Amino acid sequence: MAPTERPLSRPTIAFAMGDPAGISPELGAKLLALGEVRSAAHVVIYGDRRIMDLGAEIAGVELDYDVVSSDSDLPLAPERPVFVDLASLGPGDVTPATATIEGGRFATDNFRRALRLAESGRADAVFFTPFNKKAMRLAYPGYDDEVRFINDVLGRAVSAGEFNILGDLWNARVTSHIPLSQVPGAITEAAILRSLRLTHDAMTAAGFARPRIAVAALNPHAGDGGNFGREEIDLIEPAVQKGSTEGIAVDGPFPSDTVFLRAKGGQYDAVLTMYHDQGQIAMKLMGFERGVTMLGGYPFPICTPAHGTAYDIAGRGIANPGAAREAFLLAARAASRRISIAA
Amino acid sequence: MAPTERPLSRPTIAFAMGDPAGISPELGAKLLALGEVRSAAHVVIYGDRRIMDLGAEIAGVELDYDVVSSDSDLPLAPERPVFVDLASLGPGDVTPATATIEGGRFATDNFRRALRLAESGRADAVFFTPFNKKAMRLAYPGYDDEVRFINDVLGRAVSAGEFNILGDLWNARVTSHIPLSQVPGAITEAAILRSLRLTHDAMTAAGFARPRIAVAALNPHAGDGGNFGREEIDLIEPAVQKGSTEGIAVDGPFPSDTVFLRAKGGQYDAVLTMYHDQGQIAMKLMGFERGVTMLGGYPFPICTPAHGTAYDIAGRGIANPGAAREAFLLAARAASRRISIAA
Repeated sequence: MAPTERPLSRPTIAFAMGDPAGISPELGAKLLALGEVRSAAHVVIYGDRRIMDLGAEIAGVELDYDVVSSDSDLPLAPERPVFVDLASLGPGDVTPATATIEGGRFATDNFRRALRLAESGRADAVFFTPFNKKAMRLAYPGYDDEVRFINDVLGRAVSAGEFNILGDLWNARVTSHIPLSQVPGAITEAAILRSLRLTHDAMTAAGFARPRIAVAALNPHAGDGGNFGREEIDLIEPAVQKGSTEGIAVDGPFPSDTVFLRAKGGQYDAVLTMYHDQGQIAMKLMGFERGVTMLGGYPFPICTPAHGTAYDIAGRGIANPGAAREAFLLAARAASRRISIAA
Repeated sequence: MAPTERPLSRPTIAFAMGDPAGISPELGAKLLALGEVRSAAHVVIYGDRRIMDLGAEIAGVELDYDVVSSDSDLPLAPERPVFVDLASLGPGDVTPATATIEGGRFATDNFRRALRLAESGRADAVFFTPFNKKAMRLAYPGYDDEVRFINDVLGRAVSAGEFNILGDLWNARVTSHIPLSQVPGAITEAAILRSLRLTHDAMTAAGFARPRIAVAALNPHAGDGGNFGREEIDLIEPAVQKGSTEGIAVDGPFPSDTVFLRAKGGQYDAVLTMYHDQGQIAMKLMGFERGVTMLGGYPFPICTPAHGTAYDIAGRGIANPGAAREAFLLAARAASRRISIAA
């Protein structure tokens, strides 16, 4: 991709429609109706326009977009959003508030197409409205999480990471969707350092001049000087030292039951946790449902709101687009910065 | 102990003075000056009255107590607090805001004496102002935590548990001060069931008619149906079932990143977590520093405020006695109930 072909400040975002049975359609419509969103990026939407139009009706918004039927018809840097209408799912095929294989196929297809557009260099970031994991698995049995699916689509294992973002506070983790019994074995100095670099790079791309990262300990009381485990001494401290030597603003390890209090108090911009629940317990208590998930480590940013498909309130037009808006704007910001650095 | 020798509603509490270098002296003095505290229990204090009087001076309160020099001089059910003056530490021996072996000896001695009074049946509960773990270890090298020390003093291994209490929300844990790598091996159906019963019993003693207990999962997404670990299916669910059969109001396992949101929302009175940080991350974020720690499973309740020695604000008279007051009153409540049940 030659970034100079398009205005530096306005990236192209591939927008994948998520699960059709929840709030995704109305959320997508609300988002596309926002002037702020339309001016932040050129938008290419993947899905079925009948579902999107239904979402607009539910949301009570007017949508204004062009329609093409394949990627080859896509204009470069379109002023108005362009809908690549895959004509894959009619409103009659949607079972409201239910995870179905049809819904999973719709969402996986849209996501795959959006990823490929970005991979080909014709988009600079990917955004998606919420998926339903059960539906994704019905359609794609190997769907452990987004990271695994993306690697499958890209045909290579990227050392990627998931970032959870609430306001100005980021959370990344060294391990994720594995049994707790496998966590200690997966915590190596190399793995910690890789996550640390990923976090630093993703946050720099998102606009932090020098993100301050706090690293969580693995054991209670940060191992209590070796009494309750030695990973802090043997693995985490050396990784923090090396990261620091590389110029990353990193401290730790801190006991995981106080590290979020430090970060929340403004001492740090990010917390790197050792395992899934260590960060998720804190982030969800702080209101992460209003936050954003970013997948980093890929050649392009991938963002989505942190909340789910909200089957319980779907179809009523009351879904709050706040987190989706933040996710979209973060994708646009990170993509712009990447473009301007590359230029 | 023959509970009928004393008024049922007014238990005797053995009060151990904590670390002398922090806020413990002024906190203890503030507490003993509260009419509410004095009317809730007969109080027997262990420490050095010179340190307590200094605390009263710092706190700006007048203390009114009797003094004896040994347990054999203790009156039964004394109306005014009785100070067992061990004459063990003078103000000149205290290094302010520093963990010293002298401070540790003072606190461990007081704690040991208080425990023994309760063990002998002459007190119904133990309360202590904050310890400094480093000082405790200087004085008593095997001091891993209170549970271990108490077992040493009592000369037997009691299946005890630590409860963290914030307002009406209790948190108990199946494992505590062990490396994370040892957690999965320590999570057995029997261990979960034991913690469940301990929690139910301690909460019933504290006044809950039928405490509603939520059990946390071990793995991310509660194991995701076995994809991310099988402990939920193989161990936790069966333990919850058995607890339920025994009449305990228990549900779970719930993903640990949402279980505290449920409890906070009022669905549950307690969360039983599988390991230390799982509960501590949540409790500390919710403000557990204002809460209470109770040690359960012993023949008598043992309570202390959750916060520490606060070396940074010691000696200024500004220490907030709120959590200490709650801890003392909980000890009194739980002890009264125990006495009336036994009567």
